[in-house]
Amino acid sequence: MEPLTVEVFAVGGYGEAGGRNMTAVRVDEEIVIFDCGMSLDKSLVFEKDFQKASARELRRVKAIPNDPILRPHRSKTVAAVLSHAHLDHIGAVPKLLFKYKCPVFGTEFTIELVKADLRNEIRYADEAEDIMINLYTVEPGDEVQISSKLRLEFIPISHSIPCCVLPVLHTPYGAIVYACDFKFDDNQIIGYKPDYKRLKQLGKEGVLLLITESLRVAEEIKTPSESVAREMVNDVLRFADEESEGIIVTTFSSHIERIQAIADTADRLGRKVILAGRSMGKYGRIAEELGLLNLPAGARIYDRPETIRRGLERANKEKEDYLLIVTGHQGEPGAVLPRIVDGELPYRLTEEDSVVFSSSTIPSPINRANRYVLDTKLRLKGVKMFKDVHVSGHAGREDHRLMLRMLQPEFIVPAHGDPDMLAAYAELATQEGYEVNRDVFIMFDGTKLSLPL
Amino acid sequence: MEPLTVEVFAVGGYGEAGGRNMTAVRVDEEIVIFDCGMSLDKSLVFEKDFQKASARELRRVKAIPNDPILRPHRSKTVAAVLSHAHLDHIGAVPKLLFKYKCPVFGTEFTIELVKADLRNEIRYADEAEDIMINLYTVEPGDEVQISSKLRLEFIPISHSIPCCVLPVLHTPYGAIVYACDFKFDDNQIIGYKPDYKRLKQLGKEGVLLLITESLRVAEEIKTPSESVAREMVNDVLRFADEESEGIIVTTFSSHIERIQAIADTADRLGRKVILAGRSMGKYGRIAEELGLLNLPAGARIYDRPETIRRGLERANKEKEDYLLIVTGHQGEPGAVLPRIVDGELPYRLTEEDSVVFSSSTIPSPINRANRYVLDTKLRLKGVKMFKDVHVSGHAGREDHRLMLRMLQPEFIVPAHGDPDMLAAYAELATQEGYEVNRDVFIMFDGTKLSLPL
Amino acid sequence: MEPLTVEVFAVGGYGEAGGRNMTAVRVDEEIVIFDCGMSLDKSLVFEKDFQKASARELRRVKAIPNDPILRPHRSKTVAAVLSHAHLDHIGAVPKLLFKYKCPVFGTEFTIELVKADLRNEIRYADEAEDIMINLYTVEPGDEVQISSKLRLEFIPISHSIPCCVLPVLHTPYGAIVYACDFKFDDNQIIGYKPDYKRLKQLGKEGVLLLITESLRVAEEIKTPSESVAREMVNDVLRFADEESEGIIVTTFSSHIERIQAIADTADRLGRKVILAGRSMGKYGRIAEELGLLNLPAGARIYDRPETIRRGLERANKEKEDYLLIVTGHQGEPGAVLPRIVDGELPYRLTEEDSVVFSSSTIPSPINRANRYVLDTKLRLKGVKMFKDVHVSGHAGREDHRLMLRMLQPEFIVPAHGDPDMLAAYAELATQEGYEVNRDVFIMFDGTKLSLPL
Amino acid sequence: MEPLTVEVFAVGGYGEAGGRNMTAVRVDEEIVIFDCGMSLDKSLVFEKDFQKASARELRRVKAIPNDPILRPHRSKTVAAVLSHAHLDHIGAVPKLLFKYKCPVFGTEFTIELVKADLRNEIRYADEAEDIMINLYTVEPGDEVQISSKLRLEFIPISHSIPCCVLPVLHTPYGAIVYACDFKFDDNQIIGYKPDYKRLKQLGKEGVLLLITESLRVAEEIKTPSESVAREMVNDVLRFADEESEGIIVTTFSSHIERIQAIADTADRLGRKVILAGRSMGKYGRIAEELGLLNLPAGARIYDRPETIRRGLERANKEKEDYLLIVTGHQGEPGAVLPRIVDGELPYRLTEEDSVVFSSSTIPSPINRANRYVLDTKLRLKGVKMFKDVHVSGHAGREDHRLMLRMLQPEFIVPAHGDPDMLAAYAELATQEGYEVNRDVFIMFDGTKLSLPL
Repeated sequence: MEPLTVEVFAVGGYGEAGGRNMTAVRVDEEIVIFDCGMSLDKSLVFEKDFQKASARELRRVKAIPNDPILRPHRSKTVAAVLSHAHLDHIGAVPKLLFKYKCPVFGTEFTIELVKADLRNEIRYADEAEDIMINLYTVEPGDEVQISSKLRLEFIPISHSIPCCVLPVLHTPYGAIVYACDFKFDDNQIIGYKPDYKRLKQLGKEGVLLLITESLRVAEEIKTPSESVAREMVNDVLRFADEESEGIIVTTFSSHIERIQAIADTADRLGRKVILAGRSMGKYGRIAEELGLLNLPAGARIYDRPETIRRGLERANKEKEDYLLIVTGHQGEPGAVLPRIVDGELPYRLTEEDSVVFSSSTIPSPINRANRYVLDTKLRLKGVKMFKDVHVSGHAGREDHRLMLRMLQPEFIVPAHGDPDMLAAYAELATQEGYEVNRDVFIMFDGTKLSLPL
Repeated sequence: MEPLTVEVFAVGGYGEAGGRNMTAVRVDEEIVIFDCGMSLDKSLVFEKDFQKASARELRRVKAIPNDPILRPHRSKTVAAVLSHAHLDHIGAVPKLLFKYKCPVFGTEFTIELVKADLRNEIRYADEAEDIMINLYTVEPGDEVQISSKLRLEFIPISHSIPCCVLPVLHTPYGAIVYACDFKFDDNQIIGYKPDYKRLKQLGKEGVLLLITESLRVAEEIKTPSESVAREMVNDVLRFADEESEGIIVTTFSSHIERIQAIADTADRLGRKVILAGRSMGKYGRIAEELGLLNLPAGARIYDRPETIRRGLERANKEKEDYLLIVTGHQGEPGAVLPRIVDGELPYRLTEEDSVVFSSSTIPSPINRANRYVLDTKLRLKGVKMFKDVHVSGHAGREDHRLMLRMLQPEFIVPAHGDPDMLAAYAELATQEGYEVNRDVFIMFDGTKLSLPL
Repeated sequence: MEPLTVEVFAVGGYGEAGGRNMTAVRVDEEIVIFDCGMSLDKSLVFEKDFQKASARELRRVKAIPNDPILRPHRSKTVAAVLSHAHLDHIGAVPKLLFKYKCPVFGTEFTIELVKADLRNEIRYADEAEDIMINLYTVEPGDEVQISSKLRLEFIPISHSIPCCVLPVLHTPYGAIVYACDFKFDDNQIIGYKPDYKRLKQLGKEGVLLLITESLRVAEEIKTPSESVAREMVNDVLRFADEESEGIIVTTFSSHIERIQAIADTADRLGRKVILAGRSMGKYGRIAEELGLLNLPAGARIYDRPETIRRGLERANKEKEDYLLIVTGHQGEPGAVLPRIVDGELPYRLTEEDSVVFSSSTIPSPINRANRYVLDTKLRLKGVKMFKDVHVSGHAGREDHRLMLRMLQPEFIVPAHGDPDMLAAYAELATQEGYEVNRDVFIMFDGTKLSLPL
Repeated sequence: MEPLTVEVFAVGGYGEAGGRNMTAVRVDEEIVIFDCGMSLDKSLVFEKDFQKASARELRRVKAIPNDPILRPHRSKTVAAVLSHAHLDHIGAVPKLLFKYKCPVFGTEFTIELVKADLRNEIRYADEAEDIMINLYTVEPGDEVQISSKLRLEFIPISHSIPCCVLPVLHTPYGAIVYACDFKFDDNQIIGYKPDYKRLKQLGKEGVLLLITESLRVAEEIKTPSESVAREMVNDVLRFADEESEGIIVTTFSSHIERIQAIADTADRLGRKVILAGRSMGKYGRIAEELGLLNLPAGARIYDRPETIRRGLERANKEKEDYLLIVTGHQGEPGAVLPRIVDGELPYRLTEEDSVVFSSSTIPSPINRANRYVLDTKLRLKGVKMFKDVHVSGHAGREDHRLMLRMLQPEFIVPAHGDPDMLAAYAELATQEGYEVNRDVFIMFDGTKLSLPL
């Protein structure tokens, strides 16, 4: 008889924040994949045109997961699961997943966004079709038997994008929980609430392994609820409204709940809402179709060059009647806000206008430089600026501690984080009675681990 | 005939955050003093026992204002005004103001706290009596004629302590507004709301000079409202309550509105409130007497060693029934939280308890070291920690811009800030059309300026 | 009779490090200009092609000095002086100086570099000719009578470029010393040594005004001598030589003394020296012609695309025989090192090669992003990296204190620095007995100051 | 027959810089201990009087190694080795080593300093005797057979204290190299030079395991040689000498080579040298006795309260004739410099004096606060300050890379560092072809690891 084996493959994201997240788990003879993301930072550093680039060149510069370590097991892959629709979790799907010929599971919002990416793929357009037919939509709470031994469950959780789940792989050796990414937020309105009851129950049933994000584990906080962000948005927009002609808010296109809050506040202030930008269109339209986003009457989404131009032209004529929600919060060239600032779009910014950043700068030097350029230009125009009207979507130390205490996993693998974040998670686990290299394991991209069952 | 003269004396706080704030204005032959604070940091660095120390030694180490520059004018002082009750604005009153033999104006909460300090003064106990009889209480909106030419007005404003005002000195040459310290907050419940209407009216009547704090002018924000802090408190305490036995919150004793919010939330969660610590008693009792603080039924304030001990002993027996609001957020030795952590008070902290910091660390290396010691000890005990559940009370860049646009002062003197903050204010003013050394003046402690009327 | 008047115009660099330095002084009816620099950072932010851009658009984005404040006095300009050849001190000469129709003084190295810039100017090519004929070369110690009342003197000083001087304007009211930029270094080999004797003598004769750089005044150091950098270079190159095939060093092209030290060390290690890059050619050739730079036998300078390519091709064949000194230390795209890293030049970097940065990153987010991209790519290749093999050329707090004590100026205007640096200089001056707004004045771009004689 | 076993015990320092370093290695049935240090920071945080405290209470606050994990193996300990005499490597010897009843090896300088600590021990004074008789002095290059299977070798290496060695444990399974702490410096004069030849030979013979410090592995440098520090010292002291009456230099008492350089420079400048402070006496006298330190004629060491007082009194009378080398570079209360500044010692500091910090601030908030207090007081006195006249003694990334390439170990355990430093070492190793959890292992205090032989 074969010995019991559970093996973890750190395919990507082990050592980088916002990177190419991908983990695979081998249970005896079967493989399950969790997420398949891209590193936006690496593709910026190496100036890759993502839609056109080959997997080989993207992998060489660490922009997509290092999946050759899975090659021997490829044919044994029984499922891939996508936890949520952020690009660092789904962005490499078009480049890699076709090779695995397995069903791909996600909630509806996630799957719809994967489809959008697959339709945009240029290099692997044919292969994208193969993935497309393997996509399966699940509801939170659903359970799916993926093989005789393995079952997937999807526990609803809160994060900064709608319809995020914690996938749980039930194995003969216990449950494997993949908690990338999450925070505990009881006041989120759109998407799911954390299912504490089920998490505690799981803990009692026995969790073999917790694979968990670690981005903000060093911060000794419970990450503030989105209700705090709503109050911030309300506070800033009321202030800005009083004193401004035009108001532009820029935020993450995928943060549907935030967009809803901004739009609702704009509506209460009597300003018409315009969403402008390519990705505002992508996320906004899908969220609208799925009933997640309910824009106020009269709101418009403009996501093609000519409609963006026409929409801004109209808003520019009666600035005090409009609030624009646009792309460009990281200062990325080509997005709507930087183009407005450069005078490339027909909306003139003056010292009577306000620009609100409902976002934080993702800490890469490239984003910092882009924002520096954007902010310097905004300052030269004398525009009023409101930064950091934002709360994070990632678990702080106390969210993590709660997760640990509820699940009581036998083994832990911190994932999705810089090396120092993985190490900081190990410190928390040590404080909670775990021991590094006995039951907590720090992994780096391209390594694997046999659980000492 | 004499030429018109208005002279500004930067007595203290010009070059230091949280320091010995004091400004004097000479209008022709008369002097008016604004604030008379102490530098807590300097008195820590030089280890001065404040109540016992002489003005001479405190001045030598820059712990109290450099008021000898006022000596030639002392007898011409017609009034001193205290804007609010923070120690960096009133802390040096017992050491210096008796020499000026002038009436001292402030709102009731401020004056009551000055009285408390005067009663505690040891070195100048007799002189304290002289000041005591010169204290006058004003209401927001009040106007007081202090000489044939000069009139004081008190405009209500929001800050992180109740009953803060912007004193305005009406002179034959225009109004002089002293805006130290403030933020624009429409959702404060305790204390005053900013009187925008009056500020705009003042601007139309003609403001000669704005003397303004500058601590956070470099932050491109509108400082979040206390309503954001309330939501943070609510979010964290609900989370902590669910998972904890004991809960300790530490915050600024003078921040009555915050204490109210914490106490109200505790009450909703079914926990009895205890305020513990010497300064919790000082501020809390005065606030209660003046009807500013309304603690829930059953709440207790303990501010003497024996009552603190007895109160904690009781709370320690039924931890899950209590929420403690205590001193010690800067880790200062001798305060309640550090003493609990050191086992000097009968309340045992374990990994089932939560400590919430509804504060930020004031950025001096001494506070950082004290907090490092405190936090290291809390971590060793495995206590759950929730930091930075806080919003600032100081104006951000956009609050400042609004003030500037409403008042349209002819001249500006940034005050209360490190040199780089004063310089950052000058940058904002430059952006708004002012010119350094023509209408905006950067001053340092011990210097004076004749306005070029 | 007219009253005595000396007026200082803060034309540029007052509020920015590495910016558009330019100061003008009016003595009664005559104007003298000190420096005429450009802000590289601003021209990067606003993506200006410097050679082609108009003064108007460059001024709008603050890339060149705000000289319209001099318009009323333009015709009274009797001289312009260039202290040294860094671009933030001479870069705007082709855009502005022709309007002043005055003689322009500088040391030979400085003047030769101005000529190179004038020859490259596209937009104002004709006007460049007019400037060209007004250029005058001076020697350290020279004195030039520029009008009946005014005399210029050039005191030798050390900095990070050869042949830097402190211009002194002798006026009927005392001497005006322009100390931008400098450090006190007794061990510099190329260029001049500081003339302490003359500085002290000046102090005794009476200095009316010191205009001084302030970049590093907050650092409580005496800036280390270039002899420290030589020892660093020696230490690192010996180490690298032992373990590497190829060695590339990148440093400031204008830092001739550093280049000499690197080249000499390479020679001792038996490696042939190649200087590669456009600006390596510009500075290197002029320095060679003037006898400032003496490259070892066999050294080559390649500064045109085809020669760079050919030179690198040769070095690539026998890497261990060469040491390359190249442009690109700030990661600027288009420079030699970034192009090597991107595979655009025929020199292959592997894990057996070393790259030495004999420079520090100039603290702008754009440089940081460029270096981040460069460093990430170098890391991917496994190249050995040696950063910060460098000492600064700018005065630390103790250099400044010494200057102050030697010159004992009546008035001080800190220049060339961010607002916080200007303020930090004011702090030092205060410590040394000066008083802000009485004898030390913080100025911002576009302001002027009448000295209270 | 038993399977081959080599086990590593991370007893202390795995997760803290400057901490309680201690590692044990089990080879089959025998144990060897490497270092036995204390965490100065933790003993400051918890205010422990080290000489009087029990092992139990010091262990509870993590001030000394967590050695109970060795309890089952205690009787099998065949040797303890001390790599060098820094307190974070030998400070816990008096508290712990007596329990192991094994010979303790170190170079003469190290052993003499251990003896000094043992003589000062109060709590375990009797046990100290037991350790004393087990101390054995070795020379670099020595080999000692410590059991039938195990042999120790001591390879000379450079660091910031004299007579540092890399202990190598030769086992039947290959060599185990303990590289804590080191840098590669070919220009050190006192102590040993790195034995590159032997290291490369070891690499060829076969290194099973490298246990290595990791403090500065994230810095992409080769740590500068002490020759750079010598040049810095020379540069600063010449400058200071010219302009100052008194000169005080403060540096690490254990950094004999630095003290020598300072003293030599003082001698050249014609200033008499005084070493003052308790630990200056401890290290200085032992170094003198062993011929490591050769102070110039007329130099004096004062290490007792009354001699310090008398010595300073004399120096105070002819300040310009003396240069003091004193304790207190971290601002630690009780050391000589802070006491001079507080006026507790008879040496008056004025604006004509210079204080040189030939040290860097060890990055703990407690040190930062102490230095803040010290520096603020020095500034108030107007004293000239020269900071950071220092180079580190710890390996940078390129020193580490060289060590790796020379030794080519089969397995690596990064030690002595914060969690992020351990993780940064793992990154370097990954770049060099190693794999985390296969051949590089991140360990935390209190864990053990069986090498997968």
